[in-house]
Amino acid sequence: MQNKIQLMVDTIEEKIINARRDFHKYAESGWTEFRTASIVARKLKDLGYDLLIGREVIRAEDRMGVPSEEVLHMSYERAKIQGAELEFLEQMKGGYTGVVGVLDNGDGPVIGIRFDMDAVEVEESIDENHYPYLNGFSSVNEGSMHACGHDGHTAIGLGVAEVLMNIKDSIKGKVKLVFQPAEEGVRGAKSIANSGVLDDVDYMFGGHIGIAQNSSGKLFCGMGNFLATTKLNAYFKGVAAHAGISPEGGKNTLLAAATGTLNLQGIPRHGDGITRINVGKLVSGSGRNVIPSEAYMEIETRGSSSKLNKYMEEKTIKILKSCAHMYDVELTIKEMGSAENEYSDEEAIERVKFAAQKIKSLREIIDRPVGFGGSEDFSYMMKKVHKNGGKATYILFGSDIKGPHHNGKFDFDEKDMINAVKVFSVLAYDILKK
Amino acid sequence: MQNKIQLMVDTIEEKIINARRDFHKYAESGWTEFRTASIVARKLKDLGYDLLIGREVIRAEDRMGVPSEEVLHMSYERAKIQGAELEFLEQMKGGYTGVVGVLDNGDGPVIGIRFDMDAVEVEESIDENHYPYLNGFSSVNEGSMHACGHDGHTAIGLGVAEVLMNIKDSIKGKVKLVFQPAEEGVRGAKSIANSGVLDDVDYMFGGHIGIAQNSSGKLFCGMGNFLATTKLNAYFKGVAAHAGISPEGGKNTLLAAATGTLNLQGIPRHGDGITRINVGKLVSGSGRNVIPSEAYMEIETRGSSSKLNKYMEEKTIKILKSCAHMYDVELTIKEMGSAENEYSDEEAIERVKFAAQKIKSLREIIDRPVGFGGSEDFSYMMKKVHKNGGKATYILFGSDIKGPHHNGKFDFDEKDMINAVKVFSVLAYDILKK
Amino acid sequence: MQNKIQLMVDTIEEKIINARRDFHKYAESGWTEFRTASIVARKLKDLGYDLLIGREVIRAEDRMGVPSEEVLHMSYERAKIQGAELEFLEQMKGGYTGVVGVLDNGDGPVIGIRFDMDAVEVEESIDENHYPYLNGFSSVNEGSMHACGHDGHTAIGLGVAEVLMNIKDSIKGKVKLVFQPAEEGVRGAKSIANSGVLDDVDYMFGGHIGIAQNSSGKLFCGMGNFLATTKLNAYFKGVAAHAGISPEGGKNTLLAAATGTLNLQGIPRHGDGITRINVGKLVSGSGRNVIPSEAYMEIETRGSSSKLNKYMEEKTIKILKSCAHMYDVELTIKEMGSAENEYSDEEAIERVKFAAQKIKSLREIIDRPVGFGGSEDFSYMMKKVHKNGGKATYILFGSDIKGPHHNGKFDFDEKDMINAVKVFSVLAYDILKK
Amino acid sequence: MQNKIQLMVDTIEEKIINARRDFHKYAESGWTEFRTASIVARKLKDLGYDLLIGREVIRAEDRMGVPSEEVLHMSYERAKIQGAELEFLEQMKGGYTGVVGVLDNGDGPVIGIRFDMDAVEVEESIDENHYPYLNGFSSVNEGSMHACGHDGHTAIGLGVAEVLMNIKDSIKGKVKLVFQPAEEGVRGAKSIANSGVLDDVDYMFGGHIGIAQNSSGKLFCGMGNFLATTKLNAYFKGVAAHAGISPEGGKNTLLAAATGTLNLQGIPRHGDGITRINVGKLVSGSGRNVIPSEAYMEIETRGSSSKLNKYMEEKTIKILKSCAHMYDVELTIKEMGSAENEYSDEEAIERVKFAAQKIKSLREIIDRPVGFGGSEDFSYMMKKVHKNGGKATYILFGSDIKGPHHNGKFDFDEKDMINAVKVFSVLAYDILKK
Repeated sequence: MQNKIQLMVDTIEEKIINARRDFHKYAESGWTEFRTASIVARKLKDLGYDLLIGREVIRAEDRMGVPSEEVLHMSYERAKIQGAELEFLEQMKGGYTGVVGVLDNGDGPVIGIRFDMDAVEVEESIDENHYPYLNGFSSVNEGSMHACGHDGHTAIGLGVAEVLMNIKDSIKGKVKLVFQPAEEGVRGAKSIANSGVLDDVDYMFGGHIGIAQNSSGKLFCGMGNFLATTKLNAYFKGVAAHAGISPEGGKNTLLAAATGTLNLQGIPRHGDGITRINVGKLVSGSGRNVIPSEAYMEIETRGSSSKLNKYMEEKTIKILKSCAHMYDVELTIKEMGSAENEYSDEEAIERVKFAAQKIKSLREIIDRPVGFGGSEDFSYMMKKVHKNGGKATYILFGSDIKGPHHNGKFDFDEKDMINAVKVFSVLAYDILKK
Repeated sequence: MQNKIQLMVDTIEEKIINARRDFHKYAESGWTEFRTASIVARKLKDLGYDLLIGREVIRAEDRMGVPSEEVLHMSYERAKIQGAELEFLEQMKGGYTGVVGVLDNGDGPVIGIRFDMDAVEVEESIDENHYPYLNGFSSVNEGSMHACGHDGHTAIGLGVAEVLMNIKDSIKGKVKLVFQPAEEGVRGAKSIANSGVLDDVDYMFGGHIGIAQNSSGKLFCGMGNFLATTKLNAYFKGVAAHAGISPEGGKNTLLAAATGTLNLQGIPRHGDGITRINVGKLVSGSGRNVIPSEAYMEIETRGSSSKLNKYMEEKTIKILKSCAHMYDVELTIKEMGSAENEYSDEEAIERVKFAAQKIKSLREIIDRPVGFGGSEDFSYMMKKVHKNGGKATYILFGSDIKGPHHNGKFDFDEKDMINAVKVFSVLAYDILKK
Repeated sequence: MQNKIQLMVDTIEEKIINARRDFHKYAESGWTEFRTASIVARKLKDLGYDLLIGREVIRAEDRMGVPSEEVLHMSYERAKIQGAELEFLEQMKGGYTGVVGVLDNGDGPVIGIRFDMDAVEVEESIDENHYPYLNGFSSVNEGSMHACGHDGHTAIGLGVAEVLMNIKDSIKGKVKLVFQPAEEGVRGAKSIANSGVLDDVDYMFGGHIGIAQNSSGKLFCGMGNFLATTKLNAYFKGVAAHAGISPEGGKNTLLAAATGTLNLQGIPRHGDGITRINVGKLVSGSGRNVIPSEAYMEIETRGSSSKLNKYMEEKTIKILKSCAHMYDVELTIKEMGSAENEYSDEEAIERVKFAAQKIKSLREIIDRPVGFGGSEDFSYMMKKVHKNGGKATYILFGSDIKGPHHNGKFDFDEKDMINAVKVFSVLAYDILKK
Repeated sequence: MQNKIQLMVDTIEEKIINARRDFHKYAESGWTEFRTASIVARKLKDLGYDLLIGREVIRAEDRMGVPSEEVLHMSYERAKIQGAELEFLEQMKGGYTGVVGVLDNGDGPVIGIRFDMDAVEVEESIDENHYPYLNGFSSVNEGSMHACGHDGHTAIGLGVAEVLMNIKDSIKGKVKLVFQPAEEGVRGAKSIANSGVLDDVDYMFGGHIGIAQNSSGKLFCGMGNFLATTKLNAYFKGVAAHAGISPEGGKNTLLAAATGTLNLQGIPRHGDGITRINVGKLVSGSGRNVIPSEAYMEIETRGSSSKLNKYMEEKTIKILKSCAHMYDVELTIKEMGSAENEYSDEEAIERVKFAAQKIKSLREIIDRPVGFGGSEDFSYMMKKVHKNGGKATYILFGSDIKGPHHNGKFDFDEKDMINAVKVFSVLAYDILKK
């Protein structure tokens, strides 16, 4: 059967690639995946899956970093124009762009697989050698680009959906294909994890394509040493004044933010493990001769445990508050996203290895590589499943990438999507087979 | 005659006010005053002035802070649509938006009066009580607003032009009415001062309307203790990296800029007089989880003498370079504008007082108020005239303003324009009378 | 009589010089002038002055920056060994080292003249060309040196005392010769001003010798544009930790103090006038591999008005507190000294000029030079006298100095002391003459 | 035999304890261990060891952080007074305070054991509960205290020396007991490692007593994941100026050092592993009203590999240089000490475990605990031995400590010294037994 599955995947290779290119062309950023999610819903429904959409799988109060009403509205309207499936759109209004396809085959284990759908806020390269540009499927949506491979993830999910439906007579139990919005900025997973949709899951898998040069055909299993992370925005509000006439009259938000930047960067390292801090963006001031009365900072903290990330987050907030006090300016801090540190289970890892060994097109299986310093809100799903006694792990599907992740030249090798479909399908079959 | 002049001004009051409102509505920022300047040229020509336009009065290499080609082009096209006088537009292409009207009456003193024409890059208030909004002459050009009264200055200039032409038989010598672009950011005057157009000027006057609450009807004479100033932009270029995976791989421009900001702010005060420093704008970084690879700073230095401003400027450059070196990032510094410190002559001040005492609608004449901490590139014109043995001074025409200068609610009392026209006209007459 | 006074001074020139060298040799820092003050008391008593000593002229609660009990005790014992006049020592115990000599000649004006007596905490030069070293009167008290000329001031005071007693039959009213401790660090004058001893003074004078190269024989009158100033010490207390094992365990006072230093230095300039800030000393940390758990800062603020100094002081305290909060460390701030900004009266200035014009050995009289950026706690005495309707001013006695003030090579020309004695004596005579 | 050895150690327990207390009382800081080292030499010689002393075991050019001539001289003279063994003193003059005792028993393995002898620059507690104080063996040498247990290490070394000499007929090969100066600040080991004395060593062992509460009787084997480290001093030299009169005239070293401190603290974390930075001491400025013209910093960097430490060191130097340039001040950087990161060999670890299991008084043996964040210049000896094909490891002898290491209340449980003597002796016997 495992061989049959692989042949089945090869048959739909072109379909998977086309789906990926379609998603790539109409890239949609986090919480605005109206077109993408509605097309996913259409395909799943047509295949025969039961659908859970929008607030059925997204807990409103756990969404983070949701764009403004205006952006949501404009994206919604754009999706209509760009061919969204209108039938499902209403349920997603306001940015509830999650879809779960359920295949319920009676008693047996429940398996969940997560696919994230959102694009990155990056401008796509117009370099002649950039494959999507050359082949006419570059993003048409200014400021959004699939520069992290989630177009591929969504296409993989649809491939897996087709395969598992094809072999549904050979399996028992339940399949939940979780299409998640807003993984970028680690904003979406928590709201799905807390929606209840994963409460019965016994085995939860997630994965990512890409990562490194010269890795096509390699599979890295047992990932899960993600760094816990918190994403914060800080908004300072002061008072403007003429910098020549009355420099003392201002309340200078830039001095507060610059002092904050240096002191955040200097938060002491921690003896217990890895920590990270980054002020990724600072925008302050309205004009050269005016004391800056506004400042905006995008900050992230990370830690090799949730405790260490908490240490970083608390120091960050203390520093920001002290800087605001120093310059007598107002400060608002907003949490824009977060992810936990969470472990991969031995059993789940072994199952992945077991399945992967059967995939002929894989070149190498690498067990538990050392941490890559990244963060993933899939950790929320792992935690939820663990809490209920389930097992979870995360897989990297190596692919020769053309530019770094989150870079306008990013591209992966589409063949590695095919490998991923095979791995997930065989893995699910192995667990669910009658 | 001085009384006759005042009556003459009263007659054209409405014309002056209408001109001001027209300029206000079609506000144009520095070096893009195509419509404004071309209308000025038309009026001057119609009155009978000889015209000097564009490169005839602007020395190309001394222009500072010129906008991009694209901005110049778009503003040029906009001016056409908004009713610019096409006859003069060609000569102004590329941002050469200066106009000088010359009335040559043979032997006698040469008097120059300067009027600046540019708007500020501020969004105009849509508050119901905002007079221009209420009366339908708010700026229609997004991002440009006459929030510093230069619309009034230009209208004053046209008023003076009309009066002096009317009384031309009573005067001898030469009148040069200098309509200057790009005073905001102190970018334009140097190029006019160095064009040669002022080389024969014996008496040079400039002025400003507004400044303070409850000052309508007051005239402050003998200004000229402007702070010398330099406007600098700094551009840092570094290397991006993933802040979680390889924080050491980046070259962090934000840390360079934040360190620069704090150390610029801390440049030691100077025992010899007043100094100022402001980092008015800082923009850095592309995203939360990326080491910031770009930073942009808008900086200005000031000093109560050109020497003190030089001290500040040199320290600024040294600090910026050291910060760039510290973080191994590239740095480009551009000078965007500058003004000198320059003195008012006793004789010129006395002449202003002498003329002002005859203006009945003035409430009070205040002699040499203490410095106001501002800067003016009119200082370049004063310096040039001084160099050739001429006299120069600067006048403030008090006016009850509704919001601070450079604020979206700024507005002045239009009656004070009328006072200004009277003062300049009488002043010119007193000097040039046969 | 004015000529007679000058001849009288010439007669005691050697005595004045010897007194100065004696004080120089046994230099005593602020509040420890036991030997100096007791010798002053002896001389005044022998001349016939009534004495007010110690707490009679010093208000305990207004003393600032008093050294530790231990330092006071050791200095007291040292004074005994170095020839202090034991008769007066007891009254000065605990650092009450002020002396006022009173010559009460019945009805008439009351004139006060202030002489400060303390040395600076500087090591004296052992350069062969250093005059005190060459002539064997270098300071024998390690760490204390008369590097600001107060040895000269004290000797001038004794010279004036002798002259005025000699001419007592020609004068009426009252003379108060005020010998003040602890002018360095502006710590002593307030306690004398508030003791009541100046409450009846009609004319108060103070002065300083030295200041600038090539100024011997010049007299600068009408000083008084001192900068108001506040002297603060900040003590941070944190928690040490091993910098390798548990860097997060410390509470780092050095980071708090370094952040404080940069932000203090960056307190915005003030549109209303001159301000100053200096962190003159920072000591933090116990060892290389320990998170620094202590930090000590010596800070001073200044302003051209007491309001501006207050602005600086308040910002300073706010910044320090914010830094302490940022690093969760304790902070104690102590005021170590202060001086006001105070003006010289026209009448007092005119009296100085009038007297000075009669002094033949003066080369030039300079009226109201521009501010020198320094501070003087004599301002407290001026303020007190002004409050009671009296007049006050401050005089600089130019002298060719060999090194900057507060430098180990400082020395002045002793002849300028003689000028000062003449000026003060003639000035007093002019006011008090029968 | 292993049991016999343990009984033998128990017999000399009191001798070991007395030796420790004697060393504790006469604590000597790095490179000044004249008394300690000479007594060690006397004991070794009396036991029958061949001696290598001073330059025979210390390579002059590899000594780091050597105190001034004056300190060396005074310590040398103090040692004479405090009972140093004069016979060996001459060879140690100038701070060559290393001693190696050699027991050459013919063919066989060569084993080296290192004992460090120096005290820490800490003031010993006079708390009544402080055991050394209570028992009258507190340090009599002001500013030096055995607050890191090296008094115990030296005593352990003498105990091991006695045992091995007692059993010399049962062993073959060679024993080298290495008594090292200046481990604090990681200054001494490199000079011994490079002297040649370890070139023939097959097995090299080092160890430390103390570390943690509630660890008496525990042995931690297989340490060796020390952090590589570099110890740097930075000296800034600027120009003083009067902070009120001419703040611009100074070249401010404190601003350079404070900027340096914040930016050093902010050196980016490294994706490849652990890094550390600490500015442990900053001293700057001479007085409150003077622009600080001197600054002194004590800095250390660390890294979990020598490469990572190099990264930190290079960034540190770049930042310091940039700060000096920013404030136009001179900078001198001196390397005061360094240690490498080095690994423990499996074989060596196994040998320690094998021996330790026989020691009855040990409570627990812990294999390869995770890194403790500390640094040890024993790493230089490990590296040298590794280079010649030998094996090396490092042992922690747990002991209930009364205060943290490097704290004035530090004290360990003397019984744990006895355990250490047993472990080293049995370990040596196991390797060398005939």
